[in-house]
Amino acid sequence: MRELYELCGAEPELVFSPYCWRVRLALLHKGLSFVSRPLRFTDKAQLAFSGQPLVPVLRDGEAVVSDSLAIFRYLDQRYPAKPLLGDALSSARLGLIDQLIQHSLPAGLFKALVLRIHAVIDPADHAYFRQSREQKLGLPLEEFADPVAGQASLQQALPPLNRLLATQAYLDGSAPAAADYLVAGFFFWAWSLGEQPWDSDSPVGAWFQRLLGQYEAQLGPVKRAA
Amino acid sequence: MRELYELCGAEPELVFSPYCWRVRLALLHKGLSFVSRPLRFTDKAQLAFSGQPLVPVLRDGEAVVSDSLAIFRYLDQRYPAKPLLGDALSSARLGLIDQLIQHSLPAGLFKALVLRIHAVIDPADHAYFRQSREQKLGLPLEEFADPVAGQASLQQALPPLNRLLATQAYLDGSAPAAADYLVAGFFFWAWSLGEQPWDSDSPVGAWFQRLLGQYEAQLGPVKRAA
Repeated sequence: MRELYELCGAEPELVFSPYCWRVRLALLHKGLSFVSRPLRFTDKAQLAFSGQPLVPVLRDGEAVVSDSLAIFRYLDQRYPAKPLLGDALSSARLGLIDQLIQHSLPAGLFKALVLRIHAVIDPADHAYFRQSREQKLGLPLEEFADPVAGQASLQQALPPLNRLLATQAYLDGSAPAAADYLVAGFFFWAWSLGEQPWDSDSPVGAWFQRLLGQYEAQLGPVKRAA
Repeated sequence: MRELYELCGAEPELVFSPYCWRVRLALLHKGLSFVSRPLRFTDKAQLAFSGQPLVPVLRDGEAVVSDSLAIFRYLDQRYPAKPLLGDALSSARLGLIDQLIQHSLPAGLFKALVLRIHAVIDPADHAYFRQSREQKLGLPLEEFADPVAGQASLQQALPPLNRLLATQAYLDGSAPAAADYLVAGFFFWAWSLGEQPWDSDSPVGAWFQRLLGQYEAQLGPVKRAA
């Protein structure tokens, strides 16, 4: 049995972590079925078997792997067909893309999404979420949150993706692979939280719809926050 | 004979275009000698043989190729040893890296370097440079120029590179390849103009010094503006 431990809201079907979405998309790419093991923030003790406290964790028979890119690497080693990472050079470039994207996308999106996250998580998670995030941010969630500024920050980050996707269907070329999934994780984060802070008529919007359509054709509708 | 048409200042040895630097580094990577054909901005008519007006242009026997990434592609096809781009997936990821880097590095660097460029180019180029750039910028060069703001903008863009280079010697892994050269072109741009708006003790600073050392060991000291 293949199990994906992932973050959920008060409703266990509402999974929204961008890093868990990366793994869902990678499993779909490989054609591998899995059972979702949704956890709330305060269920972290259930990850003790993985030796660390963060989702996503993939348990695949005897194998236990955490961290989205490590899971991509594991999947390519265990199931070589339909590579996600590619050869050593492709894999190194994916590492650079991940650094660049982590620097440009999540901060603005978090500003846009943080109160949505607070609204969808289980009440049991509220204290943990607020305390851990306010400590990192250095200010109350309500002062940090700013959907307009967050969307503006995202818009600043999208031109390079739009330019590339105006000329090719996927970030990784004519077919999607790991670069698409590691970027798309952030878009599924917003989408599952009920938001879409990008233009659906843009190349990025069309690319997201293609990935969403492929996902939903195989795994059914994505649960979205109301 | 292999000729590289590239942009120069009043002194023909002072070559500073970031896109020409990409090609110099790629030729060095391949171990291919070349003759520099330095051009001033107002010498563009000499590029008519290439069917377009921009440097870099590589003339290699019968082949004429412009655009830095197209030249990388040509070099891999004509001289397959020591690949720059790698396979189709590596090459697609390089395209994404180029878009992300073009979005994050050159704008701040140009703000820091523009008056330096104006100072080193041939007086015959002054009117063209000012007019073409002021039209794009929508304001006088002196109002746009801001070395402090430019350096601050560069600092905002460097964390992802520093994080990666803290764990590996080159952007493309344990050995340099096309991703290193396309990013390094911007650093050689600043360096040849006599500036170094990054911390030499940072991972990025050490990476640049490695590439500079390899270049100078083969091709001699880089000419820098006073």
